[in-house]
Amino acid sequence: MFDFGPRSQELVVRMHDFLADHVYPAEAVFARQVEEAGYPRPTPPVLQELKETARGLALWNLFLPHPEKDHEPLSNLEYAPIAELSGRSLELAPEAMNCAAPDTGNMELLSMFGTPEQKEEWLQPLMAGEIRSAYVMTEPQVASSDAGNIETTIERDGDEWVVNGRKWWISGPMREDCRLLILMGITDQDPGASRHRRHSMVLIPRDAPGVEVVRELDVFGYKPFETHVEMRFTDVRVPVDNLLGEPGAGFAMSQARLGPGRIHHCMRLIGAAERAQELMIDRAGRRSTFGSPLVERGVIREWIADSRMEIDQARLYTLRTAYLMDTVGNREAASEISGIKVVVPNMARRVVDRAMQVFGGAGLCQDTPLARMYAETRIVRIADGPDEVHRRALARTELRRFEAVTTPVPRGATSHLAL
Amino acid sequence: MFDFGPRSQELVVRMHDFLADHVYPAEAVFARQVEEAGYPRPTPPVLQELKETARGLALWNLFLPHPEKDHEPLSNLEYAPIAELSGRSLELAPEAMNCAAPDTGNMELLSMFGTPEQKEEWLQPLMAGEIRSAYVMTEPQVASSDAGNIETTIERDGDEWVVNGRKWWISGPMREDCRLLILMGITDQDPGASRHRRHSMVLIPRDAPGVEVVRELDVFGYKPFETHVEMRFTDVRVPVDNLLGEPGAGFAMSQARLGPGRIHHCMRLIGAAERAQELMIDRAGRRSTFGSPLVERGVIREWIADSRMEIDQARLYTLRTAYLMDTVGNREAASEISGIKVVVPNMARRVVDRAMQVFGGAGLCQDTPLARMYAETRIVRIADGPDEVHRRALARTELRRFEAVTTPVPRGATSHLAL
Amino acid sequence: MFDFGPRSQELVVRMHDFLADHVYPAEAVFARQVEEAGYPRPTPPVLQELKETARGLALWNLFLPHPEKDHEPLSNLEYAPIAELSGRSLELAPEAMNCAAPDTGNMELLSMFGTPEQKEEWLQPLMAGEIRSAYVMTEPQVASSDAGNIETTIERDGDEWVVNGRKWWISGPMREDCRLLILMGITDQDPGASRHRRHSMVLIPRDAPGVEVVRELDVFGYKPFETHVEMRFTDVRVPVDNLLGEPGAGFAMSQARLGPGRIHHCMRLIGAAERAQELMIDRAGRRSTFGSPLVERGVIREWIADSRMEIDQARLYTLRTAYLMDTVGNREAASEISGIKVVVPNMARRVVDRAMQVFGGAGLCQDTPLARMYAETRIVRIADGPDEVHRRALARTELRRFEAVTTPVPRGATSHLAL
Amino acid sequence: MFDFGPRSQELVVRMHDFLADHVYPAEAVFARQVEEAGYPRPTPPVLQELKETARGLALWNLFLPHPEKDHEPLSNLEYAPIAELSGRSLELAPEAMNCAAPDTGNMELLSMFGTPEQKEEWLQPLMAGEIRSAYVMTEPQVASSDAGNIETTIERDGDEWVVNGRKWWISGPMREDCRLLILMGITDQDPGASRHRRHSMVLIPRDAPGVEVVRELDVFGYKPFETHVEMRFTDVRVPVDNLLGEPGAGFAMSQARLGPGRIHHCMRLIGAAERAQELMIDRAGRRSTFGSPLVERGVIREWIADSRMEIDQARLYTLRTAYLMDTVGNREAASEISGIKVVVPNMARRVVDRAMQVFGGAGLCQDTPLARMYAETRIVRIADGPDEVHRRALARTELRRFEAVTTPVPRGATSHLAL
Repeated sequence: MFDFGPRSQELVVRMHDFLADHVYPAEAVFARQVEEAGYPRPTPPVLQELKETARGLALWNLFLPHPEKDHEPLSNLEYAPIAELSGRSLELAPEAMNCAAPDTGNMELLSMFGTPEQKEEWLQPLMAGEIRSAYVMTEPQVASSDAGNIETTIERDGDEWVVNGRKWWISGPMREDCRLLILMGITDQDPGASRHRRHSMVLIPRDAPGVEVVRELDVFGYKPFETHVEMRFTDVRVPVDNLLGEPGAGFAMSQARLGPGRIHHCMRLIGAAERAQELMIDRAGRRSTFGSPLVERGVIREWIADSRMEIDQARLYTLRTAYLMDTVGNREAASEISGIKVVVPNMARRVVDRAMQVFGGAGLCQDTPLARMYAETRIVRIADGPDEVHRRALARTELRRFEAVTTPVPRGATSHLAL
Repeated sequence: MFDFGPRSQELVVRMHDFLADHVYPAEAVFARQVEEAGYPRPTPPVLQELKETARGLALWNLFLPHPEKDHEPLSNLEYAPIAELSGRSLELAPEAMNCAAPDTGNMELLSMFGTPEQKEEWLQPLMAGEIRSAYVMTEPQVASSDAGNIETTIERDGDEWVVNGRKWWISGPMREDCRLLILMGITDQDPGASRHRRHSMVLIPRDAPGVEVVRELDVFGYKPFETHVEMRFTDVRVPVDNLLGEPGAGFAMSQARLGPGRIHHCMRLIGAAERAQELMIDRAGRRSTFGSPLVERGVIREWIADSRMEIDQARLYTLRTAYLMDTVGNREAASEISGIKVVVPNMARRVVDRAMQVFGGAGLCQDTPLARMYAETRIVRIADGPDEVHRRALARTELRRFEAVTTPVPRGATSHLAL
Repeated sequence: MFDFGPRSQELVVRMHDFLADHVYPAEAVFARQVEEAGYPRPTPPVLQELKETARGLALWNLFLPHPEKDHEPLSNLEYAPIAELSGRSLELAPEAMNCAAPDTGNMELLSMFGTPEQKEEWLQPLMAGEIRSAYVMTEPQVASSDAGNIETTIERDGDEWVVNGRKWWISGPMREDCRLLILMGITDQDPGASRHRRHSMVLIPRDAPGVEVVRELDVFGYKPFETHVEMRFTDVRVPVDNLLGEPGAGFAMSQARLGPGRIHHCMRLIGAAERAQELMIDRAGRRSTFGSPLVERGVIREWIADSRMEIDQARLYTLRTAYLMDTVGNREAASEISGIKVVVPNMARRVVDRAMQVFGGAGLCQDTPLARMYAETRIVRIADGPDEVHRRALARTELRRFEAVTTPVPRGATSHLAL
Repeated sequence: MFDFGPRSQELVVRMHDFLADHVYPAEAVFARQVEEAGYPRPTPPVLQELKETARGLALWNLFLPHPEKDHEPLSNLEYAPIAELSGRSLELAPEAMNCAAPDTGNMELLSMFGTPEQKEEWLQPLMAGEIRSAYVMTEPQVASSDAGNIETTIERDGDEWVVNGRKWWISGPMREDCRLLILMGITDQDPGASRHRRHSMVLIPRDAPGVEVVRELDVFGYKPFETHVEMRFTDVRVPVDNLLGEPGAGFAMSQARLGPGRIHHCMRLIGAAERAQELMIDRAGRRSTFGSPLVERGVIREWIADSRMEIDQARLYTLRTAYLMDTVGNREAASEISGIKVVVPNMARRVVDRAMQVFGGAGLCQDTPLARMYAETRIVRIADGPDEVHRRALARTELRRFEAVTTPVPRGATSHLAL
């Protein structure tokens, strides 16, 4: 128990070295190169070098749980500590290892639902890190946590699909090497149709006519490298073969995509929290007020202890969820995925917030990665389902489990203990 | 991973049946029999029957990690789900299985440090459930979370030890079958002596002259079956052979005793929290206000979800701690033991508090076990080291781990991930 | 601003002396006398003396906002600091001053809605402190936070009302001098009738045939002096003149009764919190661990600071609510009454909990008033409307206020600032 | 009680109109004009117009509690609702009314400690809104919450003071019309000198040789109009007459400056929180998920209720603090100033965070003022003393008050109630 197996342990060691020897030293360089480059954003040279290094170290595509050419998959549990470590350098490490959202989810979709031709055209270059992609789902006019609200249409016209609508919170399209958009819209215009059989996904080349970036979106003032944008799709036409999976299967596919995406976010945020904790401890040892270093103060020690207890619990919860995904499947683990999706970003927020407080002004500005981490935790509390929707979902499952117990004295603990 | 092994799984099934078929139905009977009996408190008949049933089912002495006659030990990890289930009926199940504090800790002490004669006289009848014992450490005049404050003296006088002092928060001595007190005091009167080499433990028969119960202590308004008392020891004399372990080893022995005691408390409180959660869900389905059952309300659903997330995290944290105790030892796991000692009772408090709120008045009175559970969570936040002392200890370890990392970029996550 | 006026300030000084010179010294005596007396509980001599002292000092009936014979009323705002101080000795001071629930609410009902005969018979002896009364509303089978659930019937039969039903959480009937029960039930049996016009209140002599105490209810194990009971009413007959107010006006009257009752609870709990804070500071100065007094530790200082900030905010919120009740009326202040009803007991719970933690075992047992205070805060979170119902009500008002703002840019702050 | 007086009430009405008719419509224009202008930043035309409007409405310099030419001062209590309303448009309204930090604090310093010549040269144009100023205190190398750490030197050389050092978190110097820096440094180089008599303040023209902006500092990712910078002072020379106040009085003057600055921050953040609450309610009424508007959901209603309760308490706490500053003075009110400095930004953070959650992505980006408000609350938890330092200070006062009570039973409530 609590053993990741030899393959994962070996990768952890390699990851530590990769971070220490290559990634951390590249962080400042990366920030400078991004700032100096214009739009559309080229991949900064330092990131390109990191990608080659990672690939050479076989720290590449480790996220993908499905066998593809040249790819022997890790289980979610084996991947967990690797993903966590990549979260210690949120902007650099995941992409350096070709394990960054939204490409990861898109590769999963193509791997699971793509035709051989689609895989050939898009999955191969994505897995080779040669191109980037974006995922296009959320809409500005409606509450997208309810997919039933989606209004963008994908209409059949002869041999083509015609896409019209407005989308936002799409990360990636400003990247120079972004080639592919995977868009979810409504193919079945009949509002009386089954609520969850009306959506489809379609593959749209980034440079297709009618595809337009309306504006960039800040996140707490940041315009990160993978900046978020709002887009307009006006009579965008793609061949019928560009439909991904079955027509009407879009909602189910998006759910299939979300599970792994959510746990990857959580794994990475745990790594970010660990780094914040280290930064805080280091700083608290260096600064003094009123005659003693901060690290000697009882209040700061409580923060250190609270952060440790919260990180460790959230990590274990995430690992168990990974284990469940591996053993009983993403669908059966949905409730636990909801649970970590609520728990982890809130935990990371608290840990990062404590670190910011110890750093004072340096914690708020570009001198530490803390404020940026904070923004990331805040996004994750909304993206892929806001906290309150996941709590609802989790409660629903909890009630079902309770009702499944038919004996007069519920023996419900079993279901939880048996894992 | 997350697999308890066949032995534990089989015991879990047996425990579920034992609880459902024997323990839950006995709860009301027990409360009545305790109330009707006088002082000193006899073991109520229904509890005596439960003990015989449990022994017949081999649900007996499962807590003891050391091999003793007729006892093949479980690991802490194997024991965890059993102890958790016993916490679903906090007052009855642990003792029914001869797994109740303070006897458990006392049996551990005797098992680890007792002479053959001491084992013969005290450990055998304790393991047979024929007698009960008490543990005598805390003192009313000083803050006992710092053992250095202890004032009770154990002085050598010829072939005897003479004990003088005042102690409180001792559970057990009002039981009719309580025969043994294990008392910690100062044997080295030299205040200049090493702070942690001055204490010793001595075995005192309950009926020794000079042993006196001063008063009962309420917990909130409860005088539970295992009521707590304040005691006075006036020139109590025992033979020199009654010293337990080495002279001056008392502090170390008490620490050795505390680790398992703390995790057992935590395991049981997780079970109590699970039962509170079940009670709450059940109640929320039965009560309606303003036209809809409580279970339909979003706020109640959030409580259900929050409790599930908190319970699951706390359980995993406890299981990992058990695993560490099994693999690297109690001493190395001290920081994690501190962590669960803070996390679990606070978690259980919140879960029970939510359940009380759903029950309204019934949650505060004798109609549910909730208020009593609440009192128990409150005791555990103080007993065996208050929250704030454990947070300090945990922070100290965290700082040491951080300093142990000598590379310029800390790679500290390893120590946590490696588990 | 923030000035209570001369009358209130003078009473505050008198109250401080009364508490210091009479009430605090009586607390231990009272506990002993209550424990020694049997059932039905007589008024302990020490309480009788306190009542005479308080009356002599004109610290008597100060709660009543309506002019009655020999009674010149204080405003709610003037009364607030007096009630707060009485909460420093929750069990003794309020009754000593004839300002204890449930008599206060009952006197208000009689004062507002009683006929001259009813006042003569019941209000006069209550105001003289010669008899005690109880208020009978909550029912065990249903969620009473929704008055629509009430099932007890008050049926007309000739010149009499006949009462049948089961009630609980009634405090007072075990007192020897309890003479009067004010019971709310259903007079209009037509379920189609207007939801809030079906209830009435009836005056029932404590010794009327058919009135029966079924059992006492613990609160966290306590059976306080004013113990709570469950009662059965079987064909209890009273003359038609015993109806209080109009038939069908019961719900409205109960609401009228609740506003002041709720704010009195809050005022007193603020006093209890202040006392807990003082006890904690005092203790933290006397106890030492690991070489320094607790009061020197940063963590304890944070508790002290947090409690002070929370108490002060809750007090100001309560005072403003009192001011609103005085100026715009209880109905218009309903939202603020809901607010303090949520805020104050939760604040007091946290303050008391911190104090308990500093006291260790002494904070849980009879050696301090803390555990009892804790139980009281927990009752108040449920009694007179649970937290979640008050939050709903407050949100409803907030939404109405928001909608009342018709300009495109809401100018809503006015409503709050203007007070 | 709870009455601001006619002057303040009239100003509140005027402020509401000013905000609705002029400020809110200008917000988007301002953002655009700031973005389009280069460095050094000119005052955008829309802001210039607002300033003229505000001055015409006599909504000008209302913050200044000291009589100056053409200025009849408001009390802190009278000013409170005005400042709160200005916080509804944090970036625009305060400066439009010449009530924005850091000018406000600088004007106070000049008003209290300036010579007639200094007032003539700097205070008059500041009060006329013709120039801007900056306050230069915090240093990057040390923990500035302890003023004893300050290292920048102000050395006497003949008729001049020579300033050397590095400072940061200075807002304003990038403004085109910034003319004056008020800098705090060490004039008494003797480390053995009294800890709080070593600092002085000196007036430095923005364009003095040796004054250099090193870099801009982000706050989260923002570079707001009043962007923060790091500066280097190298042999900067000013005439001896440029010393503000007495030599060695710098620490005391900075404390005098901080009190009002802190409460102004708090007043404004209350207004920001009110606006966030309104935005949230408005949004929750417009968005629907799963078939019902968000505002119908119990969880959202709890957020609405919690925010209302927290805002109202924090406002009352702030008002009482203002009242204390007016009546017993800033020094005696120091503990309450610390209290609101902890309470208010944390309250505003929670309120804004809830609103962000309801808005989803729109809450994080430039489409709402929420993320920017959030950043502001986060700064205030650090600027002018971090939370933990204020808690320490508040606890120290609480302990002193407690010790001042000499009777055996503390009568400490008086001190709090009497206010």
